Amino acid sequence: MTDQPVPTTAAGEATTARGEQTRQLILETAMRLFRERGYARTTMRAIAQEAGVAVGNAYYYFGSKERLIQEFYNRTQREHLAAARPVLDRESDFAARLAGVLHAAIDVLTPSHDFAASFFKVAAEPSSPLSPFSPESAGPRQASIDLFAEVLTGSTAKVDPELRPHLPELLWLAYMGTVLYWVYDRSPGQARTRTLINGAVPLIDRLVTLSRLRVLRPVTRQIIDLVRALRH
Amino acid sequence: MTDQPVPTTAAGEATTARGEQTRQLILETAMRLFRERGYARTTMRAIAQEAGVAVGNAYYYFGSKERLIQEFYNRTQREHLAAARPVLDRESDFAARLAGVLHAAIDVLTPSHDFAASFFKVAAEPSSPLSPFSPESAGPRQASIDLFAEVLTGSTAKVDPELRPHLPELLWLAYMGTVLYWVYDRSPGQARTRTLINGAVPLIDRLVTLSRLRVLRPVTRQIIDLVRALRH
Repeated sequence: MTDQPVPTTAAGEATTARGEQTRQLILETAMRLFRERGYARTTMRAIAQEAGVAVGNAYYYFGSKERLIQEFYNRTQREHLAAARPVLDRESDFAARLAGVLHAAIDVLTPSHDFAASFFKVAAEPSSPLSPFSPESAGPRQASIDLFAEVLTGSTAKVDPELRPHLPELLWLAYMGTVLYWVYDRSPGQARTRTLINGAVPLIDRLVTLSRLRVLRPVTRQIIDLVRALRH
Repeated sequence: MTDQPVPTTAAGEATTARGEQTRQLILETAMRLFRERGYARTTMRAIAQEAGVAVGNAYYYFGSKERLIQEFYNRTQREHLAAARPVLDRESDFAARLAGVLHAAIDVLTPSHDFAASFFKVAAEPSSPLSPFSPESAGPRQASIDLFAEVLTGSTAKVDPELRPHLPELLWLAYMGTVLYWVYDRSPGQARTRTLINGAVPLIDRLVTLSRLRVLRPVTRQIIDLVRALRH
């Protein structure tokens, strides 16, 4: 949800309706070309040409191809929030909320499936600014983690107090695993990803409930320590 | 470990020492070119040329580029078994055996790290015959699952009887996850992958031990059902 600031000129063009239109046109064109030709083979020059704007204009709005992808992330994130809202407003059961949010993500991502598969080759590199783990992706990543925090706080789930502050990030990691599975899912309509969500959610729900058992406390601590060790 | 049959001519050339030499030469050359140029850009023609053999000869021994990769898998699998043997002969503690086998795999894979990163883009496609989940990879996959069965059977670990028959495959899936992490690991000497193994093994060990608790039986069943649902 954190919109990065749009550069403004002295004339403030970017804030005008026409500026926003041009910006959207460049973004839509870029997404179409990424889908049709793949991310690596699409240049800023080609995007500008197809959109019918000067190359300088395209750079004015987005600075680089990477910025276009960041914008795609931001937009996907906003759409995800909007798609998840009804289930978050309606349900108080943790499992129902988690399933709703994960299915909403796949609903939003579905039209980009072909693009995602080709694009993933770039984004999976941890050193890439396009990786969901990169400093450059901090905005949409945090917004996404916040969404999983809301899954938890709006629910009636009772959680081990040591686990609670870490659970949103762990759920987000599970979500990233789901997206990875979806990227390579070749079943019709990515039906297997839905099977994965429907099977993993009751499992996570049960583990979260069991986290309050004394015997499982050390497991919780080990998981938290491992994630922390891998983050540095 | 399952060597696929080498085609033989009427003269039985493939069974001779010289035939084996030529075969090894083609394989080594292919691996070098895959590393230097990437898998996609290396043709059978280029491999034959660099190895100084006729193209027909290269096809005679390997049939296709995919067969060369299958051979690479077979060889890696044999090297992994050999590297894991000392720890399996020495240790009876489940965690020590599992850590030994996982570290041995990374030891064997390390010289191929650059190659693996470029190659992964092809192998990750589940429809690719080069995917570790493909029917074509059944031989080395089963040998690898058998190795994790040996980690378990040679150990003193006490396991829930319902989990026991499924545990080798679950450990193999954890191993595939480790390899995926390693492929994208950009830390010096892939040190983070070692951190992952050292943190995940005690966690798995504890969960395996806890699997005998009555309260965790449904969790075990859910995991087994989920893996089964995703396999079909």
